[in-house]
Amino acid sequence: MDEADRDEAAQPAADDQIRDQVRAAARAARDAAAELALLPRGAKDAVLHAMADALVARAPEVLAANELDIARAEENGTPAGLIDRLRLTAERVEGIADGLRTVAGLPDPIGEVVRGSVLANGLQLQQVRVPLGVVGIVYEGRPNVTVDAAGLTLKAGNAVLLRGSSSAERSNTALVAVLGDVLAERGLPTAAIQLLPSHDRASVRHLITARGLVDVVIPRGGAGLISAVVEQATVPAIETGVGNCHVYVDARADVDSALRILLNSKARRPSVCNAAETLLVHQDIAAEFLPRAVAELRAAGVTVHGDPEVVRLGGAGVVAAEEQDWDLEYGSLDIAAAVVESLSAATEHIRAHGSGHTEAIVTDDVRAARSFTARVDSAAVMVNASTAFTDGGEFGMGAEIGISTQKLHARGPMGLPELTSTKWLVFGEGHVRPAG
Amino acid sequence: MDEADRDEAAQPAADDQIRDQVRAAARAARDAAAELALLPRGAKDAVLHAMADALVARAPEVLAANELDIARAEENGTPAGLIDRLRLTAERVEGIADGLRTVAGLPDPIGEVVRGSVLANGLQLQQVRVPLGVVGIVYEGRPNVTVDAAGLTLKAGNAVLLRGSSSAERSNTALVAVLGDVLAERGLPTAAIQLLPSHDRASVRHLITARGLVDVVIPRGGAGLISAVVEQATVPAIETGVGNCHVYVDARADVDSALRILLNSKARRPSVCNAAETLLVHQDIAAEFLPRAVAELRAAGVTVHGDPEVVRLGGAGVVAAEEQDWDLEYGSLDIAAAVVESLSAATEHIRAHGSGHTEAIVTDDVRAARSFTARVDSAAVMVNASTAFTDGGEFGMGAEIGISTQKLHARGPMGLPELTSTKWLVFGEGHVRPAG
Repeated sequence: MDEADRDEAAQPAADDQIRDQVRAAARAARDAAAELALLPRGAKDAVLHAMADALVARAPEVLAANELDIARAEENGTPAGLIDRLRLTAERVEGIADGLRTVAGLPDPIGEVVRGSVLANGLQLQQVRVPLGVVGIVYEGRPNVTVDAAGLTLKAGNAVLLRGSSSAERSNTALVAVLGDVLAERGLPTAAIQLLPSHDRASVRHLITARGLVDVVIPRGGAGLISAVVEQATVPAIETGVGNCHVYVDARADVDSALRILLNSKARRPSVCNAAETLLVHQDIAAEFLPRAVAELRAAGVTVHGDPEVVRLGGAGVVAAEEQDWDLEYGSLDIAAAVVESLSAATEHIRAHGSGHTEAIVTDDVRAARSFTARVDSAAVMVNASTAFTDGGEFGMGAEIGISTQKLHARGPMGLPELTSTKWLVFGEGHVRPAG
Repeated sequence: MDEADRDEAAQPAADDQIRDQVRAAARAARDAAAELALLPRGAKDAVLHAMADALVARAPEVLAANELDIARAEENGTPAGLIDRLRLTAERVEGIADGLRTVAGLPDPIGEVVRGSVLANGLQLQQVRVPLGVVGIVYEGRPNVTVDAAGLTLKAGNAVLLRGSSSAERSNTALVAVLGDVLAERGLPTAAIQLLPSHDRASVRHLITARGLVDVVIPRGGAGLISAVVEQATVPAIETGVGNCHVYVDARADVDSALRILLNSKARRPSVCNAAETLLVHQDIAAEFLPRAVAELRAAGVTVHGDPEVVRLGGAGVVAAEEQDWDLEYGSLDIAAAVVESLSAATEHIRAHGSGHTEAIVTDDVRAARSFTARVDSAAVMVNASTAFTDGGEFGMGAEIGISTQKLHARGPMGLPELTSTKWLVFGEGHVRPAG
């Protein structure tokens, strides 16, 4: 959570007031959700296009608000990287608007018949997709998440409670004002998209404990934020985006292919959750593979933290790994590396240290591929492909609200269907159930 | 939770020990789950049949253990109804064994390809069903749940941690011993099916907070148990089985059909969660319907708690409803009843008071049916059919582990597919993701 959120202790007396505010927002969101659930696709897509147009038309006021956030961040000595995440430009606002248009173009999941049958007694059974209801999103600095999340949840017929960072408060307020005006113009409830107070951490606590009012909470951010939300929530929560991803180079790997996949998995964008953090190399290929791998990783600016065998084969540039390295999500140009004696030693290592996000095997051996995909229990398992492909856009989902690393409800990239529930419709002709 | 569980305060010093015991069991279950995940269907079905045979063959020792539980329950003055739930007979053991054979006959959900496609870049994408891993079940008196839950979780490739009632401790221990011996005979890990200590409520607390070791907890029992588990769990939990179900008789209902459905929904088995607890009648049909409905309900032994209009039309036998009646799950031969002025007043009443389990409309009007099914957001919505049909067996699932009344992961009766997760398999030929 951002620095600016840490002023809770300064105003404990306001806790009841914040709770009342959050719960009132959630109640209004419930009423709005009941309306949204009945909107046909055409109406939702028209709203999304209108929101995109309004954002572009009103970009000047959004950018003016953003400048106030930027100025305050600069005054507070916020690092340049965080300020860049916070900054909006006319171009970025265009990109955000295009995101809404993309969502408008995606199929509507609501009403889809997932399963259906006619029972022996003639009852007709249909399992159909319905909205979740009220979705809470807890996130950090980037203001684009405000609009992305609002667009996706709206398309899936849900109301959304947005709890962003206080550092982006003015930007988020301006963005939600634009979206809310479009809802109001079309006679739709503005409570469908609400921004919660961000100056006090109590608002997170009250959001994630509003059981019965909020249907799901999705934290988006660093491991600390996600863990805090999941531990404290009484509302169902979906864990997202922590990735200690592995690349395993099998005995029978094509070395050139393995190098390409390793470099792409590690260095393409080291800060994202699908980046590789650990390299495992089969002992039979280690002597051939590791010297080249270490050289190419170093050329790409990556520090290799190796076990003794990697240190021996990789040369002077390898740093000795410590026990904790196997469990780290570096998020930086660092990688842990170990030599393993077999494929099952690799899958055991992954089971002991992995976060269940994405693991890749590079191999030409069909039996090794089959064994790896069966044994590795992660959201995504790649065979001869980069870990960087674990992404809603790459998977053809059109957009994603996050990447789930838990096993319940949704696993891997979450698109529109993952923002829905189902209900059973049963059609009879006066059917009653026999005794017994 | 049962009376005998309430001795926690007597031995607080044992808390650490119980935590260690639960966590050790969970770790062993994780290892067992990794083995179970790889078992092909044939092996799992053979184990289930062998378990069924062993239960029948060893029924005498199970029944002897059960007699000790019964004797203790009688000494403690346990009500006859609870003793009946606890009691096993040779016939009931046969029934439990047949349940395992039914599960063996169900399709194996594991490995099912849920979605799949080839992406524009040639990557092959498959979403396949995998086991959840380690499933915790917290339940009350009935010893049959021990075997039913073990069979279903095993078939779906999961390990199970069973936390039953202390009142059934000897029965459950005997049952799990039989199942464990069959696992051992076949070289499978006995940690796949484990009974947790039941004499201390701390074991529930440590089970539902073993995040990272247990993948899901499913409470089965009364509203108090379910609420306590869901509120305190840091492991994902699935809410089951609380039902304040409604029957709405529309203006254009067939009265005979409505009476049959109402009586079946209320009186077939009043203690189960799919029994109707509230009757809503459209004002245009109230004068015709209510006198007959009240008479038939009373003839079936049902007490009607009516609003003033129901009291007026239903005659002297109707008790005046109090505000709380609209929110009760009686679980008994009682029903709340109100006259509503419109279909939307009925759906508003359901939204305000329902538990999201099952609601039924009786109508000959296709527009009313369409409106009701769209507006009512419950796990199951019946049109001209009894609420009693919400059941895994009736829905053709073969067996159920419970009925989910929440919206995440599973909603309505949960069969084998609901005891699984998925993972994405991605097959490439050295694919790397372009920059950008």
